[in-house]
Amino acid sequence: MKRNAVDLNCDMGENFGLYRVFPDHKIMRYITSANLACAYHAGDPHVMRETVLLAKEHGVAVGAHVGFPDLIGFGRRRMECTPQQVKDYVTYQVGALMGFCRSAGISLQHVKPHGQMYMMAGEDRVLSEAIVEAILELDEKLILFTHRAFVTYDVAIEKGLRVINEFYGDRGARDNGVLIFKFDLNDIGGSAEAMARRIARMVKENKVVATGGKEIDLVAESVCIHSDTPGALDFFEAVHKVLQEEEIEITAVRNIVQ
Amino acid sequence: MKRNAVDLNCDMGENFGLYRVFPDHKIMRYITSANLACAYHAGDPHVMRETVLLAKEHGVAVGAHVGFPDLIGFGRRRMECTPQQVKDYVTYQVGALMGFCRSAGISLQHVKPHGQMYMMAGEDRVLSEAIVEAILELDEKLILFTHRAFVTYDVAIEKGLRVINEFYGDRGARDNGVLIFKFDLNDIGGSAEAMARRIARMVKENKVVATGGKEIDLVAESVCIHSDTPGALDFFEAVHKVLQEEEIEITAVRNIVQ
Amino acid sequence: MKRNAVDLNCDMGENFGLYRVFPDHKIMRYITSANLACAYHAGDPHVMRETVLLAKEHGVAVGAHVGFPDLIGFGRRRMECTPQQVKDYVTYQVGALMGFCRSAGISLQHVKPHGQMYMMAGEDRVLSEAIVEAILELDEKLILFTHRAFVTYDVAIEKGLRVINEFYGDRGARDNGVLIFKFDLNDIGGSAEAMARRIARMVKENKVVATGGKEIDLVAESVCIHSDTPGALDFFEAVHKVLQEEEIEITAVRNIVQ
Amino acid sequence: MKRNAVDLNCDMGENFGLYRVFPDHKIMRYITSANLACAYHAGDPHVMRETVLLAKEHGVAVGAHVGFPDLIGFGRRRMECTPQQVKDYVTYQVGALMGFCRSAGISLQHVKPHGQMYMMAGEDRVLSEAIVEAILELDEKLILFTHRAFVTYDVAIEKGLRVINEFYGDRGARDNGVLIFKFDLNDIGGSAEAMARRIARMVKENKVVATGGKEIDLVAESVCIHSDTPGALDFFEAVHKVLQEEEIEITAVRNIVQ
Repeated sequence: MKRNAVDLNCDMGENFGLYRVFPDHKIMRYITSANLACAYHAGDPHVMRETVLLAKEHGVAVGAHVGFPDLIGFGRRRMECTPQQVKDYVTYQVGALMGFCRSAGISLQHVKPHGQMYMMAGEDRVLSEAIVEAILELDEKLILFTHRAFVTYDVAIEKGLRVINEFYGDRGARDNGVLIFKFDLNDIGGSAEAMARRIARMVKENKVVATGGKEIDLVAESVCIHSDTPGALDFFEAVHKVLQEEEIEITAVRNIVQ
Repeated sequence: MKRNAVDLNCDMGENFGLYRVFPDHKIMRYITSANLACAYHAGDPHVMRETVLLAKEHGVAVGAHVGFPDLIGFGRRRMECTPQQVKDYVTYQVGALMGFCRSAGISLQHVKPHGQMYMMAGEDRVLSEAIVEAILELDEKLILFTHRAFVTYDVAIEKGLRVINEFYGDRGARDNGVLIFKFDLNDIGGSAEAMARRIARMVKENKVVATGGKEIDLVAESVCIHSDTPGALDFFEAVHKVLQEEEIEITAVRNIVQ
Repeated sequence: MKRNAVDLNCDMGENFGLYRVFPDHKIMRYITSANLACAYHAGDPHVMRETVLLAKEHGVAVGAHVGFPDLIGFGRRRMECTPQQVKDYVTYQVGALMGFCRSAGISLQHVKPHGQMYMMAGEDRVLSEAIVEAILELDEKLILFTHRAFVTYDVAIEKGLRVINEFYGDRGARDNGVLIFKFDLNDIGGSAEAMARRIARMVKENKVVATGGKEIDLVAESVCIHSDTPGALDFFEAVHKVLQEEEIEITAVRNIVQ
Repeated sequence: MKRNAVDLNCDMGENFGLYRVFPDHKIMRYITSANLACAYHAGDPHVMRETVLLAKEHGVAVGAHVGFPDLIGFGRRRMECTPQQVKDYVTYQVGALMGFCRSAGISLQHVKPHGQMYMMAGEDRVLSEAIVEAILELDEKLILFTHRAFVTYDVAIEKGLRVINEFYGDRGARDNGVLIFKFDLNDIGGSAEAMARRIARMVKENKVVATGGKEIDLVAESVCIHSDTPGALDFFEAVHKVLQEEEIEITAVRNIVQ
């Protein structure tokens, strides 16, 4: 792995119909990989097209953010679908987004399960297999985004799918390495700059300080900052400033992994 | 155009969830092109996968049957979407079906607008342009199915998209050439065999007898028989029998058009 | 409880759009309570109106069959909604069906959770409370259908909601009283008539023979026969014949409970 | 008609899922009638419950804002449903909202068609009849909101349904009386205060100045100010201030019509 480079990813394309709450236009210029909703848990075909074009305009790599068919719940509610059903939902959503990418003359870079599909697969080997197989059958050059601690990661390795570990730059971790899903600025250093320095150190030294003070080993090819994290724009600004100082290149993950 | 060959197409993949009313398993063996619903007006991702695999098993070419997002109305209700919205719906649906085709290791042959999208585009140049552009941007090798009398056909020709005329084998035509959408066995000869002979003559001589007795010139690369036409299976049987006698090859439309 | 009377209930109104697979017209004349889908897991507003009118025509009492918002999965997939969300879905669906009942000049008799909402509530006190509260707030005269063994039943009693135990007449039970969800004719006596006699005995003597041979005590105000059980129409015929012989009245559950 | 009183209505409950873009909490205190979306073109069951409770808390009368089943298009796209289909959609949506009203211990005051259902019915007698009949069958005490110039108004009068004319206080009118749907501050006096004085004069003198300078006769029991009009909150403030000065009571429309 290239040690002086990192990808910055963010969930994009989550607006729907007249509901325009997410500031994709402000965020796209800071990131290198965009996870686009595919009209299952969020987004719609119009938002998908617009967001693909916006990503293309900014030279941002596009990935499919695939979720459960649950718009009211934003894909954040557990649904007990069979592995085959989940596989079909992945194929459908990735295929649809590939359509918009083809139309825009770009190629799809990655797939990232969203919300409860991400979490459920993370601790369910069979579900992870369904997702990994769906991706491999669609295009074996696609890259899967997940957490290193999830079984999804292991399954991808076993089946020969390219996979990367994403680091939640705007979230802390406990001493045992477990991610803290609820945002707390204190967990990540208490300021945007501290957060950015934490990311820089993760990239260069593969170390992160946990909330209990312990140093954790952590290798991640991509850093995720959520667009709805309070102060997200300041965070992106700080990350760009600090990573430039540290001479760490911010580049799409396909330029980092083999 | 190859004059001793014709394609047989049928709308497939229209079942949904537990609702299994359409007998795709019985019909697939008779046809050479299947128009698959893409979960907008009918179908769902599970039905799409199953139907793509069924088509592959029978060596049937797959096309996207794209419609309005109106499951309750089965895509048969006019919806005044903007051309851009229609374009996005086509991109989304064709993309999703391409996903299932890629997974199955086959390629998508064609696109056929469904229901009111088919009809509205037929008399609306701007809507036709939206559909034709969506298809060209996705894959310029795709073939569009429409009626010769529709402006959609002209737009496809102008923009360089391959397009074929489909003949509704199970429907009559008036002396002025206008199709009669309501099924009446008397309009097509009064028996399955007569209907089949009518198709054979259309292929060989490019002539069809209208309901008023007039002979109409008609060139069509594909013949559509609807799965919900009363006696559809008998019709397919008769068509195969008669076309074999007449030494007309039944083959997917991609083998017929350049 | 009136011991020479029983209610016969069946799930109705499960067709959707053009998908007409369930034979409600054939079944309605046999039953006294109809559980109508409310366009969440099945049904649509047109089917709801038609089915309310069909029930009215046959003098059948109408109930709301409330489910998860999951049309593809027919409400049979677990969804981890919050209790408040489930409460809102019950209020919405029951309210909508009450609308059709008001329009038809009849009143709603009962509510029966469907599929996984039924099963999940059965073993979850908090979910059961949400459902019972939703019903009480809508109309405290409504009757809840559930199984006696479910915590839902206890919660209804505690909160003062009328509740009845439904007996699955077309399903067997194990010696420990647990219902066998998969249909097997041998579990219920091996013939339609035996099944009917089993029901008659349950009504008169409150006894049912389990699959292991043991006699189980069972009091149920309503008997459910599923419309998709193989041979359902024969079952209904047999039940009517045998119950008439046994002088057991078949009447809507509101005539049975206080 | 009480001439020193007027109702203020606004479309409410249009948020959906996580999408919280409409500021209902800020607006509810200014209005006396709230038109609540019913999960067809906007809103969801959770938003419906919250908004009914918010209205109750502020003593605001609740109405059903019924629309086409088109969430992506926000009910603003023409859909050619049959009159029976539209009637069923009205029954379903009004019924569902009545459910939340019953649960909250309040009664539904009115029904207002939304978007294209409002516009299409306005010039279509048969569609208007379907809507009026749906409402009458649900509850003949309900009040219909529409424009005096629409055939919907005449149909309501003919069928004996209470109906009121609503005045778009934030929109101008041409000299021929036709409403200008696009917002332009200059059309309504150039300032919030001028807009408010225009409303006060309409209430007291039944006169409105059109954009060409002509005085139009106009009697309206309710004034609508759209929550998404630029400066809506200032408008509501100004209306309250001016109407208080003019000793015009702002009260729910059920207190104004017989």
